[in-house]
Amino acid sequence: MSSQRLYEKEELYPPEEYVRVEHKSLKEFVTNVFEKLGLRREYAEVIADNLVAADLLGISSHGVQRIRRYIGGIKVGSININPNIRIISDAGAAVLLDGDNGPGQVVGKKAMEIAIERAKKYGVGVVFVKRSHHYGIAGYYALMAVEHNMIGMSMTNSRPLVSYTNTLSKYLGTNPIAVAAPRKNPPPFLFDAATSTVPVGKIEIYAKTGKKVPHSWAVSLEDGRELTGDAAPILDAIKKGKAALLPLGGLFEETGGHKGSGLALIVELLSAIVSGAAWTVHVRNTTDPQPANIGHFFMAINIEALVPLEEYFERMEKLIQEIKSLPKHPQADNIWIPGEKAWLTKETREKIGIPLHQRVFNDLKSVAEELGIPFTVKVLKWGA
Amino acid sequence: MSSQRLYEKEELYPPEEYVRVEHKSLKEFVTNVFEKLGLRREYAEVIADNLVAADLLGISSHGVQRIRRYIGGIKVGSININPNIRIISDAGAAVLLDGDNGPGQVVGKKAMEIAIERAKKYGVGVVFVKRSHHYGIAGYYALMAVEHNMIGMSMTNSRPLVSYTNTLSKYLGTNPIAVAAPRKNPPPFLFDAATSTVPVGKIEIYAKTGKKVPHSWAVSLEDGRELTGDAAPILDAIKKGKAALLPLGGLFEETGGHKGSGLALIVELLSAIVSGAAWTVHVRNTTDPQPANIGHFFMAINIEALVPLEEYFERMEKLIQEIKSLPKHPQADNIWIPGEKAWLTKETREKIGIPLHQRVFNDLKSVAEELGIPFTVKVLKWGA
Repeated sequence: MSSQRLYEKEELYPPEEYVRVEHKSLKEFVTNVFEKLGLRREYAEVIADNLVAADLLGISSHGVQRIRRYIGGIKVGSININPNIRIISDAGAAVLLDGDNGPGQVVGKKAMEIAIERAKKYGVGVVFVKRSHHYGIAGYYALMAVEHNMIGMSMTNSRPLVSYTNTLSKYLGTNPIAVAAPRKNPPPFLFDAATSTVPVGKIEIYAKTGKKVPHSWAVSLEDGRELTGDAAPILDAIKKGKAALLPLGGLFEETGGHKGSGLALIVELLSAIVSGAAWTVHVRNTTDPQPANIGHFFMAINIEALVPLEEYFERMEKLIQEIKSLPKHPQADNIWIPGEKAWLTKETREKIGIPLHQRVFNDLKSVAEELGIPFTVKVLKWGA
Repeated sequence: MSSQRLYEKEELYPPEEYVRVEHKSLKEFVTNVFEKLGLRREYAEVIADNLVAADLLGISSHGVQRIRRYIGGIKVGSININPNIRIISDAGAAVLLDGDNGPGQVVGKKAMEIAIERAKKYGVGVVFVKRSHHYGIAGYYALMAVEHNMIGMSMTNSRPLVSYTNTLSKYLGTNPIAVAAPRKNPPPFLFDAATSTVPVGKIEIYAKTGKKVPHSWAVSLEDGRELTGDAAPILDAIKKGKAALLPLGGLFEETGGHKGSGLALIVELLSAIVSGAAWTVHVRNTTDPQPANIGHFFMAINIEALVPLEEYFERMEKLIQEIKSLPKHPQADNIWIPGEKAWLTKETREKIGIPLHQRVFNDLKSVAEELGIPFTVKVLKWGA
């Protein structure tokens, strides 16, 4: 699927409000921002690579538009720019890591490197992390394992936004689960999903584009009604704390809401309850003066230690070919393998640039001015 | 929660068609059945314990009512009653196991024992299994880890019944994921869920009780319509191959159907694509003359190797207390922790007996007659 056609996973609306920027110059600029804020070059590069990867893969909610949060966390001192990331417990293939409140991206990358190293030695490696910060997209770390022909898994807890089944609450985070697996040729398999039906960003897009919110997205915390229809008032209610996101599976157990809730709890268990990080409502904002104390979980599985890689690749390709050959649903655009849309978006954006909303673009400019560094992001095209 | 009140997770309808039987005598009888079929006593006990555990936990679809399938598999020779279960690859903390077409319950138990043993040594153990058979409830194996104060995970692929997102197909199995975690006192945390919204058995119950099927359960393979309303014709369409179950998240990506599909694929990946077992449509029926070649995945995490157990327990209890204290949804019966309903059902059934439908009860009697063994199941009460 290294198709030459252009593909955008995200809806860019309205298109005239976007700017296409060259991704390498964006990464270079973001690196300079964090270096200027006092981080060693190596750490600044890790954060920039993570943010720009999110933009390339079409998850712009976790891309450079979040830069102010991380800057804020560094300025307020909750993000430790020179952390002593250290192993607290080491059982060989399982490790507990203390992030020392360092940037989540730096802590996460270090943790996944350890998981990969242990998987080389023992066939599998798992790393539990406490005292970290928001680490960006979960899939970034799972994909690190793929570069070593391993299966990667990554999960993290996060600030509460989601209703636990049978409650009127905003108790669970959107707690994503990412699993990546290598293929003979790109795109790799990449499942990277919130355990809520959608993240808030999706409702924001629906509000902008005037689309109707379907079932299983949101619930009123005032009377327990499922919220559907016009997106703008739903978004407003969420922002005012009067509504919450629904777990995957929707409002009640009958349609599987307890499964989405349960998956979110598993993420909480592996990210925080084992490691000793803060859980759900105790996780703090990145810009809070107190550290967020977010927890993560990482796993790497060394396929080659168990079966010949070629045999694994062959089975994987057959499975995917079979799926691609199934009869398509008449209302569907295409039959997609997890991660395929993100990969096509990445190929597109590497070629024609990353679309930034002008507000984000101008904000990056302001950051440059505030920090007294040159704004070196190259514009490829005005408009999406 | 070792409540003394009686609780039934399953709807027993109509109640007068059930018989309550004493669980120990049921297990003893089922053991005798499999011993008579030629299995060594130890293996027969494992199968019986697994089937009766499903009945105790309120998952009767996977309980003794399935006994004919396993008997059929043994008689036709696809289930190898004296398997040479052996480790093919051993990387220390990750192991590949060949089940030699043995009974899934025997192979699964052996695999989880290896995962636990490796977790004692390396902090984590993962076991990939090929050439197995249907292994019963996934939660059984996850709970084995809990007895060692470990977190247990278990998944398996299965025969195809579920539509892959954006297709008109019956391609995916209901591929369950089970995660269990210890608590200071029972019930343990136990998430055990199909990656489809519901299993077929749920539609059967709705057909019997005249309840209406809600959204996200089933899809017509003829025109792609979501099937809701009267359960009987939906069940009929599924049985005739004209309808399929929907993945968790429902028909389209908009409500998260790609997430349920993706989770099912992850199960397939870890159970079959790594191990070399048959995947999805290639998995055979237990009673097919050719072995099913089902694949499983198991993981055990040794909590104590990373953090003091008491600290973990304390965090876990605080998390659960917080959830239990959330405002209840006005239409909900209770706020449940994963596994709690199953545990209360187990306590109830250990006390007043396992409810078997008379059809199942009479079938067990016929099995006794056919095999020429005494029917020793003790009836505690006629009616549910």
